[in-house]
Amino acid sequence: MSFWVQKYGGTSVASTEKLLTVAERLHEQHSQGHRLVVVLSAMGGETDHLLSLARQVSSEPGGSALDLLLSSGERVSIALLALALQALGCPATALTGRQAGILTEGQANKARIKNIDNDRLNGLLDEGQVVVVAGFQGMDESGRVTTLGRGGSDTTAVALAASLGADECHIYTDVEGVYTADPRLVPEARRLEHLTYEEMLEMSGLGSKVLQLRSVLFAEKYNVPLRVLSAFGSGSGTLISKEAENMEQATIAGIAHNRDEAQLTISGVQDMPGVAARILGPIAEAQIEVDMIVQNVGQDGTADFTFTVHRNDYAKALEILEQVGGELGARETCGNRDIVKVSLVGVGMRSHAGIASRMFRALADAGVNISMISTSEIKISVVVGEPSLETCVQVLHKEFGLADARDA
Amino acid sequence: MSFWVQKYGGTSVASTEKLLTVAERLHEQHSQGHRLVVVLSAMGGETDHLLSLARQVSSEPGGSALDLLLSSGERVSIALLALALQALGCPATALTGRQAGILTEGQANKARIKNIDNDRLNGLLDEGQVVVVAGFQGMDESGRVTTLGRGGSDTTAVALAASLGADECHIYTDVEGVYTADPRLVPEARRLEHLTYEEMLEMSGLGSKVLQLRSVLFAEKYNVPLRVLSAFGSGSGTLISKEAENMEQATIAGIAHNRDEAQLTISGVQDMPGVAARILGPIAEAQIEVDMIVQNVGQDGTADFTFTVHRNDYAKALEILEQVGGELGARETCGNRDIVKVSLVGVGMRSHAGIASRMFRALADAGVNISMISTSEIKISVVVGEPSLETCVQVLHKEFGLADARDA
Repeated sequence: MSFWVQKYGGTSVASTEKLLTVAERLHEQHSQGHRLVVVLSAMGGETDHLLSLARQVSSEPGGSALDLLLSSGERVSIALLALALQALGCPATALTGRQAGILTEGQANKARIKNIDNDRLNGLLDEGQVVVVAGFQGMDESGRVTTLGRGGSDTTAVALAASLGADECHIYTDVEGVYTADPRLVPEARRLEHLTYEEMLEMSGLGSKVLQLRSVLFAEKYNVPLRVLSAFGSGSGTLISKEAENMEQATIAGIAHNRDEAQLTISGVQDMPGVAARILGPIAEAQIEVDMIVQNVGQDGTADFTFTVHRNDYAKALEILEQVGGELGARETCGNRDIVKVSLVGVGMRSHAGIASRMFRALADAGVNISMISTSEIKISVVVGEPSLETCVQVLHKEFGLADARDA
Repeated sequence: MSFWVQKYGGTSVASTEKLLTVAERLHEQHSQGHRLVVVLSAMGGETDHLLSLARQVSSEPGGSALDLLLSSGERVSIALLALALQALGCPATALTGRQAGILTEGQANKARIKNIDNDRLNGLLDEGQVVVVAGFQGMDESGRVTTLGRGGSDTTAVALAASLGADECHIYTDVEGVYTADPRLVPEARRLEHLTYEEMLEMSGLGSKVLQLRSVLFAEKYNVPLRVLSAFGSGSGTLISKEAENMEQATIAGIAHNRDEAQLTISGVQDMPGVAARILGPIAEAQIEVDMIVQNVGQDGTADFTFTVHRNDYAKALEILEQVGGELGARETCGNRDIVKVSLVGVGMRSHAGIASRMFRALADAGVNISMISTSEIKISVVVGEPSLETCVQVLHKEFGLADARDA
């Protein structure tokens, strides 16, 4: 008998038909004696619908009224799942964030979970109930309904698993697990049995949409084993946990890529203390987040400074950079929207030298031009032109033998 | 400066466009210095949509999960109205039933308001906020979300008006007020300036859909002046309050009719103690509500027993009656679906004799056949064949001079 917190996303509960499928799966697991807490998102598309209504009545919807509005979507899905379970003869109770004891702090629309009062939840579980909890929401100390920001349902699930001491937290999605690369780019990509939290963090941060970054951080902090599974398949998915012994030999977990960035360069600026701040200060003030940053000092004592931002911020960032370039007497400012970031991720890099050079060699042999490089302890990222994406991922997948089992 | 609790029904907030119109009206009233609490229903059609989802996952949706589901509709409308008001620069806060301090008791889906804790509401009103409250819902002592049953938003508004000591409770609908008769039947029907609670109760109970019966009872109990107004017109509507001095002369307030009933008759049963109970007992056990009841004793010592039920219950009631008729040795059991009930309502009946005979005479002159009669202190109801409805209402409207002002 296991104790699981399971989270189903919006696509898994997008229709009453899908909800019934989820209910049948839960009913079966409950019959087998498992202790079950289920966290749900709003039915697919509902949150966007509510947001669009808000924008029809207000040019800048926000504050606690927006929280109240958005939190209603999850109430519908949890109530329907509880009704479906009850109709199957499975004892079930639906709880809102407040009723589940989820206390939050911080600003409206982006609250953080501060504490969970488990009494009610534990009482219902002890009675043998399946407890269905609204994801993405809680209540602050003044009794206001709050939301955790987009994707917050993953965080709700992990926080509940940590607080209740569940054996595993299952994140049901529309994919079978985490893959060595995007199967649409690499047909021989393989589902990974295991990943460490660190690896998953790098994968998430790189645009892999399987898990929310914040929920992985949370799981790592409280050491909650996470399992990514398909809501409508039957596989064992991918387990994300702390480093296991049989992972020591492994080198590369997978290849992630991110198409959402654009690159900006300012070249021929005087290399002196404070120049990076002079360049990035105005960008930060405009609320633009910067991802990769690379600085080279040339032979003439001037520096080239390149960084990436989200594509949505590209035009604004370029405008700011052109002004800064003028002030600094830069030789040139330019940018490129058609780039992708491709990253090798794996805890094995720590103990295996030469990964970077093997990577660069393989890309060079394939004729792929690298325009930026950035490395961390368990990741090497390169920026390449968007047309090279497929070649780049396929070459690296083959070079590091990712189609072969890693976890044997 | 007045203090009003205003309630807008589902049709008044059926679209974001209509919500914006309501927001503009409220903003104007707030600018004039009025103290405003606004109670909203779910956007038109939303409650039916949620119910249909529930029926897709459960053959018998009910309990607190259904309450949770249905209560989400009002959260959407109140959040949107608060956002719309804020966008107009009008300080506004949306409160759920729980947040507004509405404590309920009784069973799920049909809870009753037990108590209202005004602290939070009064605090917000003192800050100059427009407070937007979700109708139809509250929280019970165990923290469960409850709903008050269909039409419960009217009751929420009246209860808040009573509890907060508002000057008037405004019920905004899609009609201009309460009329002397249905204007679709009587073109010269006139909007009433005043009605007493008792008159409104009789009108509501007779199928006039303007106000919920329960909310009128509540208003009478706590002496809250109610005003029925059009959400998109500019008239002064109809004020419903306790008997005023200038009403003493008035005779008839108006004519109500109800097409939702059907009539059943069992004739030639032995007239003996307990026979009514033998007939109505099985009907009540089948959860069928009986409205009018008439019993005549014939010359042969047998009785004819006629009563009305909702048309939806007609077939079931007739089946039960045929069985009972067999057991009692009745001469005949029969029924008629094509009937209507037409009622004269007015507190003036108390002090004016001869109203009934004037009514019957006028109907006889018009060739209308009456099949049942029932009277109360301020109401005379007749059951006639459905084809006579229009004639019946028009003749009575003319006979009692209802097109002429009553409240002069």
